[in-house]
Amino acid sequence: MDEFALIQALVAKLPPPGADVMVPIGDDCAVVDGGGRLAVTTDAVVEGVHFRRDTMSPPQMGYRAMAAAVSDIAAMGGQPAWITVALAVPPSWPQEDVVAIYDGVSEAAAAFGASVVGGDVVSTQGPLWMSITAVGRVERPVTRAGARPGDVLFVTGSLGGSAAGLDILLGRRAGSAIAQAVLVERHRRPTPRIAFGREAARLGATALDDISDGLASELNEIAEASGVRLLFEGDRVPIQPEVTEYARAVGKDPLEYALFGGEDYELVGTAPRDVFARLLAVAPVVGTPITAIGRVEEGDGVVMRRDGKLSVVARGGYNHFER
Amino acid sequence: MDEFALIQALVAKLPPPGADVMVPIGDDCAVVDGGGRLAVTTDAVVEGVHFRRDTMSPPQMGYRAMAAAVSDIAAMGGQPAWITVALAVPPSWPQEDVVAIYDGVSEAAAAFGASVVGGDVVSTQGPLWMSITAVGRVERPVTRAGARPGDVLFVTGSLGGSAAGLDILLGRRAGSAIAQAVLVERHRRPTPRIAFGREAARLGATALDDISDGLASELNEIAEASGVRLLFEGDRVPIQPEVTEYARAVGKDPLEYALFGGEDYELVGTAPRDVFARLLAVAPVVGTPITAIGRVEEGDGVVMRRDGKLSVVARGGYNHFER
Repeated sequence: MDEFALIQALVAKLPPPGADVMVPIGDDCAVVDGGGRLAVTTDAVVEGVHFRRDTMSPPQMGYRAMAAAVSDIAAMGGQPAWITVALAVPPSWPQEDVVAIYDGVSEAAAAFGASVVGGDVVSTQGPLWMSITAVGRVERPVTRAGARPGDVLFVTGSLGGSAAGLDILLGRRAGSAIAQAVLVERHRRPTPRIAFGREAARLGATALDDISDGLASELNEIAEASGVRLLFEGDRVPIQPEVTEYARAVGKDPLEYALFGGEDYELVGTAPRDVFARLLAVAPVVGTPITAIGRVEEGDGVVMRRDGKLSVVARGGYNHFER
Repeated sequence: MDEFALIQALVAKLPPPGADVMVPIGDDCAVVDGGGRLAVTTDAVVEGVHFRRDTMSPPQMGYRAMAAAVSDIAAMGGQPAWITVALAVPPSWPQEDVVAIYDGVSEAAAAFGASVVGGDVVSTQGPLWMSITAVGRVERPVTRAGARPGDVLFVTGSLGGSAAGLDILLGRRAGSAIAQAVLVERHRRPTPRIAFGREAARLGATALDDISDGLASELNEIAEASGVRLLFEGDRVPIQPEVTEYARAVGKDPLEYALFGGEDYELVGTAPRDVFARLLAVAPVVGTPITAIGRVEEGDGVVMRRDGKLSVVARGGYNHFER
């Protein structure tokens, strides 16, 4: 592999950088005009751990890795602005496939309104990997720690599709062909909720997190960081209809996909009632459905009510209990 | 490997973040207060490619990877401020060795005046790797493209030590034990020239680059980016005395280490004569020796004069010629 030629080929794929990029790729550093608060995040993916060549094309890998990184900026209420991509390439990967990864990187950068301002390309004898760092502008950061008793608990979009899509890609086919195709696409092309995240921050959401490890995990992170209890209704968790169809066909509870599946990259958050009313009004404007699934209480932990029963929901599962 | 526990152990190693870090590690993103121009750079290293376990301890790996990333900020005339570290760990690495990498990361962050504000830890079936992204403040960025005919060509410190040290680590022992120890230390602990880079930018240096791939490579990058010819005197290139001793013992030309060895992380730059005079005055204040090695001319390419002969110096070697 000729590293210089490869880098040139990768850079040629990129959309032109925004006007706020003073020195673009090609020098020691990119120079960007800050002038405000910036959110910084890094997300790494490894072939065989986070994706497989037989379940994802190179552009899909690139797009998806970018979406995962940018989703963290969205979960802070920020707007992604500048991104760097480190890429390690094993000898077994043909150069055109490596370059094709950047078709997805490039498409994602344009779709998310961000400039790829740098990176590194190295060789490795191990699996291919990417490490993506995103820097975003954020006026009022929304952390996981601000949920307060009385707040409404909400999620964006619908859940479970990515994990169901991955099950299908790994060979567990069931249900209609159309539902399967929808779920596979959902797995390959998550949509970070950037515009909604910005609005949630502007309007006064108190906590916000993106759903990368499953709703159960993120709810526990908010409850812990905020020092509160989160109570939600199992039947109100918005589940993608195709997930329900697929889960029934394979004999699973659709809710399992939403709670423990992960990688949906929707947002979960909390807001006072009046703020939530404004979020409901703005949601259609930014093309992001939201659903109230519960409320914030004093206490700790995450509790689900379903079929009249209460369960403590931990990161890895739940246990019924009486109270 | 328990990823959560590992991350906690890594974060516990870090010095407290600076006052400009509004949200530190632990949420979706770090939030930093920009308010000015920022330099962004990413640098990746892979075990077996950029370092080996038998030539470098885990803390040394961490320190060195940080130094390499931060050196790019120094070469822009910036001050490193915020750093993220992505780390992929194979099952063969004991957890305490992985955590020990962060002893070096932490030491470097403190030494360089930067806060580690985020990162990612993932598992891999391949070799260990790290990807480091550094964001720095930079008031007046100094690129490679500003060298002008008549400017003085200069380098900081002395060259060749890192490559000679690596040769020794790889088993080619020669010369005195003290010289060998000095060179090995030079390989393992490069010093990014942050303070000098800032002064060079402030006082008006016209081009600046850090020496990661050998002086020959960096000179060609400046000549190309600036559209000029660089003429330098081979005998004026500052070579570490231990390199001269070692090179003679192994029957090599010491200059080869300086020109083609790389990873010294010194700076090479250009400046008008009056600016260079001011750089000479400020160099001892920031503890960084500088040496004029030549000048910028109209034309293209890199030319070395040595023993009364001229050579064209390419990235990978040089050829004598007459003019």
